[in-house]
Amino acid sequence: MSTQSSTQGAVNTRLARIREVMQREGVDALLVPSADPHLSEYLPGYWQARQWLSGFHGSVGTLIVTADFAGVWADSRYWEQAEKELAGSTIELVKLQPGKPGPLEWLADQAPEGGAVAVDGAVMALASARQLGERLKARNVRLLTEKDLLAEVWDDRPALPGNPVYQHLPPEASISRAEKLANLRLTLRERAADWHFIATLDDIAWLFNLRGSDVSYNPVFVSFALISQNQATLFVALSKVDEHLRHVLEVDGITLRDYAQVTQALAAIPAGESLLVDPARVTSGLLANTTPGVRLIEGLNPTTLSKSQKSEVDLEHIRQVMAQDGAALCEFFAWFEAAQARAEPLTELTVDEQLSAARARRPGFVSLSFSTIAAFNANGAMPHYRATEASHARIEGNGLLLIDSGGQYLGGTTDITRMVPIGEPSTEQKQDCTRVLKGVIALSRARFPRGIPSPLLDAIARAPIWADQVDYGHGTGHGVGYFMNVHEGPQVIAYQAAAAPQTAMQAGMISSIEPGTYRPGEWGVRIENLVFNREVGKSAFGDFLEFETLTLCPIDTRCLLPDRLSAEERAWLNHYHAQVRERLEPLLDGAALKWLQVRTGPI
Amino acid sequence: MSTQSSTQGAVNTRLARIREVMQREGVDALLVPSADPHLSEYLPGYWQARQWLSGFHGSVGTLIVTADFAGVWADSRYWEQAEKELAGSTIELVKLQPGKPGPLEWLADQAPEGGAVAVDGAVMALASARQLGERLKARNVRLLTEKDLLAEVWDDRPALPGNPVYQHLPPEASISRAEKLANLRLTLRERAADWHFIATLDDIAWLFNLRGSDVSYNPVFVSFALISQNQATLFVALSKVDEHLRHVLEVDGITLRDYAQVTQALAAIPAGESLLVDPARVTSGLLANTTPGVRLIEGLNPTTLSKSQKSEVDLEHIRQVMAQDGAALCEFFAWFEAAQARAEPLTELTVDEQLSAARARRPGFVSLSFSTIAAFNANGAMPHYRATEASHARIEGNGLLLIDSGGQYLGGTTDITRMVPIGEPSTEQKQDCTRVLKGVIALSRARFPRGIPSPLLDAIARAPIWADQVDYGHGTGHGVGYFMNVHEGPQVIAYQAAAAPQTAMQAGMISSIEPGTYRPGEWGVRIENLVFNREVGKSAFGDFLEFETLTLCPIDTRCLLPDRLSAEERAWLNHYHAQVRERLEPLLDGAALKWLQVRTGPI
Repeated sequence: MSTQSSTQGAVNTRLARIREVMQREGVDALLVPSADPHLSEYLPGYWQARQWLSGFHGSVGTLIVTADFAGVWADSRYWEQAEKELAGSTIELVKLQPGKPGPLEWLADQAPEGGAVAVDGAVMALASARQLGERLKARNVRLLTEKDLLAEVWDDRPALPGNPVYQHLPPEASISRAEKLANLRLTLRERAADWHFIATLDDIAWLFNLRGSDVSYNPVFVSFALISQNQATLFVALSKVDEHLRHVLEVDGITLRDYAQVTQALAAIPAGESLLVDPARVTSGLLANTTPGVRLIEGLNPTTLSKSQKSEVDLEHIRQVMAQDGAALCEFFAWFEAAQARAEPLTELTVDEQLSAARARRPGFVSLSFSTIAAFNANGAMPHYRATEASHARIEGNGLLLIDSGGQYLGGTTDITRMVPIGEPSTEQKQDCTRVLKGVIALSRARFPRGIPSPLLDAIARAPIWADQVDYGHGTGHGVGYFMNVHEGPQVIAYQAAAAPQTAMQAGMISSIEPGTYRPGEWGVRIENLVFNREVGKSAFGDFLEFETLTLCPIDTRCLLPDRLSAEERAWLNHYHAQVRERLEPLLDGAALKWLQVRTGPI
Repeated sequence: MSTQSSTQGAVNTRLARIREVMQREGVDALLVPSADPHLSEYLPGYWQARQWLSGFHGSVGTLIVTADFAGVWADSRYWEQAEKELAGSTIELVKLQPGKPGPLEWLADQAPEGGAVAVDGAVMALASARQLGERLKARNVRLLTEKDLLAEVWDDRPALPGNPVYQHLPPEASISRAEKLANLRLTLRERAADWHFIATLDDIAWLFNLRGSDVSYNPVFVSFALISQNQATLFVALSKVDEHLRHVLEVDGITLRDYAQVTQALAAIPAGESLLVDPARVTSGLLANTTPGVRLIEGLNPTTLSKSQKSEVDLEHIRQVMAQDGAALCEFFAWFEAAQARAEPLTELTVDEQLSAARARRPGFVSLSFSTIAAFNANGAMPHYRATEASHARIEGNGLLLIDSGGQYLGGTTDITRMVPIGEPSTEQKQDCTRVLKGVIALSRARFPRGIPSPLLDAIARAPIWADQVDYGHGTGHGVGYFMNVHEGPQVIAYQAAAAPQTAMQAGMISSIEPGTYRPGEWGVRIENLVFNREVGKSAFGDFLEFETLTLCPIDTRCLLPDRLSAEERAWLNHYHAQVRERLEPLLDGAALKWLQVRTGPI
């Protein structure tokens, strides 16, 4: 309680100081998004400005400060946390809800005519800054993006992360950086682009076959890249790259420059030359100092598309990794059931510990790919729940335990959700699990034309769920990297996403299929496999793709009502389990092997 | 042959004259789209400028003329026709194909820097004119939209159509025009719009409960409407409205003004007031003369959404109309089979004649809702085929006859496609029919959240077709009017369409479900029913809709491979046929009744 109060005191002091700066600079409203210059999902502390200034620590949220108002916009996942963390401060929680104005709409409506709004352009996507700028201009409000107003008041700002950069090597790295660079340069020529600037960390790590650990879960390092036909410059804190690696990169024609020199390098591109950037993947601040006369060519980063299309060799590694990951899960489940049988006290935190340890014992394991979601009954109804020391559930009685977890391995990235029966789940719970599995099966069996915008496939997974007037608020699937971010584009199987041409399905892409059902205060269900886009071949009607299921782990039939499955659905499940058994048996023994054999029996 | 040559001579003379005008006016390129000031699907002769100037008579195509080039852009449906009709002229056929520049891209690329492009703004949608204008501006090319350059050279231009306007009366017209106007005014108040201008003929006909016959198939009349809180003006050739109707409209507060006075009326809106227009449904030329300072509010015409949501009373009339239409089809099919049995010579034209006559005998029939497609074997592979006196097939031997037809009735609009077995269709043909029927059934059985963008549902119909690596190039479904255009928005079940918020599914909308399979040079298959969006009720997960199938006519099981249907699919078909029999029996006797009874037997 006292910690909370002192945090709020600090927040109010910080707000007072930033308001002084705003007044001095003639700024009517300050926008502080959750973002960094790389538009990353996970932010190093150095860029957690919104957390520092507001005291709200959720990973997504936007702060707006004016002379007489301060508010944090957060979506429903964070309302409980935000209410707690903002209590006592002068900052309001503004609940982000469909149909209500978000922070940018609020600014466009509320900023005083003729006034000025400031945001640190270094952390705002070019596309967003343009959009906001135009909305504000319509009301004669200026958008100031040149200054980071927080810099002078944020005295205890964390340092930039300094973890070492290392190579992703063969055999797991199947394409050399030289080949990737050559392919990229070919694309640049086709696009008539003299230069290409990359700010997104996964694109850079993929292109150079390098990895890092500057943030949790994503094996990336803080950097920028600037590529032309005869230069390839990597901007990174030089202390992070050892002598050997520096030499290796030099041999491949890659120059290292300090991270801070990127602005200068961009400013040095001569007028008349062209620069390819992705307006959704580069910030407006970084481009602010380019020479007038440099011609912007805008489009998806070519690396984003290339890295989504895994090679045959990549896929062979991924299949091995999936077997190891599935074996780790079997070991965990065997332990878990034995612990239950011994009546050991079990909590959601125990699940995380034991499962993470089982993964860590597997060859090639590097880290988790996101923080484990182990959510019992009502906690499972929160799709992004995370158990903490302060707040978690004991696993006892009857119900459903949802476990969504994944690992980073040198040969691939995993992400899997399984439902675990605790005691005897109710018929309603089993109905929900069965219906969600029907969605998984419907999409897993689908074929579709190559190039179809991925959001359009979502309805195939939802149709059997909608049939019972049930739905879920999140997307059905996201792209998954190869020893890389567990969320990547360009594809996204979500009807809420715009079906833009760049979301087109191509061979080799890996996606999750993860429909769910959430009953607030009661329970939640989600079943998730990873699949990849496999070529079926050409017909008179074009090229078609289908999904190969990559994830290898039993789907617990004790959570199901087998009568509700059609003959085709039952055949799919039995075939899947036969495959899981065949692939995992060689990797297991003892109780885990026995568990696998029992849980993969046909229904 | 001589007619063709003289047409081409005339075309070349016309081109020479228009090029003189272009030179005089300093115009480098002239764009002549297929469009009228109402952005209609069917154009009165008065606006068939592209046909007149190019000699190409297809209903869709775009002409561009420069000093040394003239080309017509047409899609694959029209290539054969365009090649014939353009042969001998100096006009090139430019084949519209995905990935190749369309006419607007061509202009944006080819117009000389610093030059001028002209298009008659009176027939170009505001949204398109803006888009083209911006693309040209990027290359310093001016877009001139003020003048119709053709006016002075088109000496034999047809007159505007002068057919009488008549009322759509109760009981079929279930909502009075006074009530519709009141609802529209409520929406205008909500949108803070002082004025609303409507140019689309179906919106106007619906709003005022009026109908006409100025073009084929669509029961509309050439007009504009301008609405405010205390004025409602209908701009129409006054000779088309008789004394009685003029009086009736006056009583409802509707003022008539001559069609040509619309520009003047728009120019009279005072500065500072706001005008709601749909930028895709009004042309740039019409708005060119509004007073500077009139504030445009842009959005879907409110009538477009209102008219798509049929009332319960409308639906009762539609159900009756569907029974009458189905009965007409049964009479036709009974006659057709008898004629075959008598070995009468039958052609695609006979089908059109006899089927149209059967419809015309039904109560409430007004006209066809589009030109009948009766297409035997290879002709069926052209989705928009139309048999003509000069070119049509005899129906003989073995194969499939595709019949896509529909009628306008006072109580609704129909549109139905059925496959007819001729002799013994091949197993491959039956496979195609069965697979297409699976698509129809999958979507017909679907439930979905109210408000989902309609393009996202398309994959549900296609999934069973894609499963065999088969696809079709057209959309799966379009909206259908109520004694109104057979194609209407805002919903569209087509993955090729942008899933914009305005395409959201709402209760009461009527759509077609019409998947197909086309094998060029061999045969084509399409099966089409109309369905309406019925409310299922509210669940914990929101409001859901389902489809009620409206169309009542047997789906000939002799074209199917019943073994390929699942138990659920067979149950759907048997239930549908039981319903068709029950509803149509009272309307039929003799051979038609017998035909119905045989063709609705369970499989």
